[in-house]
Amino acid sequence: MSLLVVGSVALDSIETPHGSVTEVLGGSAVYCSYAASFLTDVHLVGVIGEDFPAEHVELLENRKIDTTGLQRAAGKTFRWAGAYDQTMNYRETVSVELNVFGEFEPELREAHRKAPFVFLANGSPVLQLHVLDQLVEPKFVAADTMGIWIENTPAELRALLQRVDALMLNDEEARCLTGEQNLVAAARSVQEMGPRVVVVKKGEHGAILVASDALFALPAFPTTTVKDPTGAGDTFAGGMLGYMAGEASTAVPILKKAMAYGTILASFAVEDFSLDRLREIGDQDIEQRLRSFQQMVSFS
Amino acid sequence: MSLLVVGSVALDSIETPHGSVTEVLGGSAVYCSYAASFLTDVHLVGVIGEDFPAEHVELLENRKIDTTGLQRAAGKTFRWAGAYDQTMNYRETVSVELNVFGEFEPELREAHRKAPFVFLANGSPVLQLHVLDQLVEPKFVAADTMGIWIENTPAELRALLQRVDALMLNDEEARCLTGEQNLVAAARSVQEMGPRVVVVKKGEHGAILVASDALFALPAFPTTTVKDPTGAGDTFAGGMLGYMAGEASTAVPILKKAMAYGTILASFAVEDFSLDRLREIGDQDIEQRLRSFQQMVSFS
Repeated sequence: MSLLVVGSVALDSIETPHGSVTEVLGGSAVYCSYAASFLTDVHLVGVIGEDFPAEHVELLENRKIDTTGLQRAAGKTFRWAGAYDQTMNYRETVSVELNVFGEFEPELREAHRKAPFVFLANGSPVLQLHVLDQLVEPKFVAADTMGIWIENTPAELRALLQRVDALMLNDEEARCLTGEQNLVAAARSVQEMGPRVVVVKKGEHGAILVASDALFALPAFPTTTVKDPTGAGDTFAGGMLGYMAGEASTAVPILKKAMAYGTILASFAVEDFSLDRLREIGDQDIEQRLRSFQQMVSFS
Repeated sequence: MSLLVVGSVALDSIETPHGSVTEVLGGSAVYCSYAASFLTDVHLVGVIGEDFPAEHVELLENRKIDTTGLQRAAGKTFRWAGAYDQTMNYRETVSVELNVFGEFEPELREAHRKAPFVFLANGSPVLQLHVLDQLVEPKFVAADTMGIWIENTPAELRALLQRVDALMLNDEEARCLTGEQNLVAAARSVQEMGPRVVVVKKGEHGAILVASDALFALPAFPTTTVKDPTGAGDTFAGGMLGYMAGEASTAVPILKKAMAYGTILASFAVEDFSLDRLREIGDQDIEQRLRSFQQMVSFS
C-alpha cells in the first residue's frame, strides 16, 4: 500500500563538530519520504519556493516518489539553520525562515485523499488537522509533533491526538506533553490522549513503542560514524511507516519490525549531511544492516 | 563455577524524588554479590566497621553468599550519601566517609585466590591491582572503574587495564577515559588499552558491549517504577558475571545473554531503595521478566 507524507521541505544550514553545510536539501517530509521510498510507494505533499533547486526534485523522483503534491509557491523555500554541540545530543536553532511554508494549507488531490497510510510530519496541529479532514477512510495515520506546538497550540494538538492512530515524538517532547519523567509512563499517558500507538524517539539511545498493551524497546544501531543527526527522527518515521505500508499491516509483529527498519534507515541518515548517505545505499545495504542489528539485540 | 566479588560494603543515605532513606545497606560488592547469587556461587570480599548491623550479614548469608572474606575492622563502616535530581539521571554526592574502606587491603584466602570468575568492583586501581596480584589463573576478570580513578590515578588504571579481561564503566566515564564522544568508538578505544570485553552502561538507556570484533546493544528493561537508581550498575555487573560464572563460559552468545540477565536484575534493583526489591524476587520472577524482555527487543 502507499504512504502519504505531508510536511516541511527545507533548505538546511547545519553545523556539527564534523563540519558544516549551507542550504542543503532537508525538511521532515523529505527525510521521511526518501527513507520510506526504499520500502513502499510514497506520495509527498509539501511546498517549495521559486528558489528550490530542480535537482532536489529530480532526486526525489529518481526514487519514484510521487511529487505531484509538491506545490511551488511564489516566494522563498522554508529555511532552517542549526548548530550541534560536541555531544551532538543538543542543538541550537540558529534561525528559522518559514517563508512559503508559513502559509502552507494544502488541498489534497483525489488520489492522495485515499492514501491508506499517512504521516503528518512536522507542522502545526492546525495544518495537520486540515490534512486529516481531507482523508478518506485511512487505515493508519501517524503524526509527529514538536515542543513549539505542545506549548503554543495545546488545544489543537489535543484535538489532533483524538483522531490519529499514532504519535511519534522525542523524549523531551514526551516529558513536556505529559509531565511524566519516566518515558514508559509518558508514552502510556499519551495513549490516554487518543493514539493507540506511541513512539518515543531517544536519538542515540533508540526508541520505545507502546501499542495498546504491548511495549517494545530498541537501542539505536551502534554506529561510530555520526556526522549530522538532522532528520534522523523523520527518517526513522519514514522507515517505520514505509515498512508498515509496504506490508499493508498494523499488526504488532509488523510494528516491531517496522521500528527496526526505522532504526536502520536513521542509522544511515546520520552518517553524513543532508540525504548524502541515504543516496549511496540500496536495498541490500539496508537488509544487511538489519540482519546485523537483529543479531546485536537478540539473545537466547 | 564461582564468582569472587571484591569491593565496597556501605551504609548509604539516599534522596530521590520518590523518598529518602538513611544508612541502608549498599556498596558495589553488596549489590553485585546479591544479584549474582541468583545465578551462581558467590564469594564476597570486603570490609565492614564495628557498627555494621549483623542483620545485613545474615541477609547475604541467607542467599548463600560466602562471607568468610568479609572482614570486620576497628572503626566505622564506609558511608555514602547522595541525592538524585528530578530525572534521576544525575546525582550529587552529598558526602563520602571512607572510614574502614580507606585502608582496605585484603589478603585473599587460598580458596578465593583460585576463583575462576572475578569482579573487581568499585575501588582504587591500586586496591584492584593488589587483589589481581593474588589471583591464581583466573578464567575471567572484570573490573569497574569510576571518574575519580580516571582523573586521580591514570597510570595505575592503565596498568590494571592491561591485565583484565573486561572493563565495565558508564557512558560519562567512557568518554572521560578515552576522549571519544561516540560510545562505540569509546568502547573500541578502551579495548586498545587492554580488555577484550568492554561494557558501557547507559543507565535508563541500556548498555553496549564490545567483545573482540563483536558488538551488542540492549535497551534497559522499560519499567515505570524507578524509585532509586543506586547500585543499578553493580547489580547489572552481578547479573552479567553471575550468569557467565554459572554457565562457566566467556563465549560470545553467553556474553549476550549475560548482558540480558544484568539488565533484568538491574531493572528490579531500581524499583525500590537498597536491596529491598531484590529481596522480594525469586528465580521465577527473573526468568519471567527475561522472557518479556526477549520479546520486547526481538523482531523477525
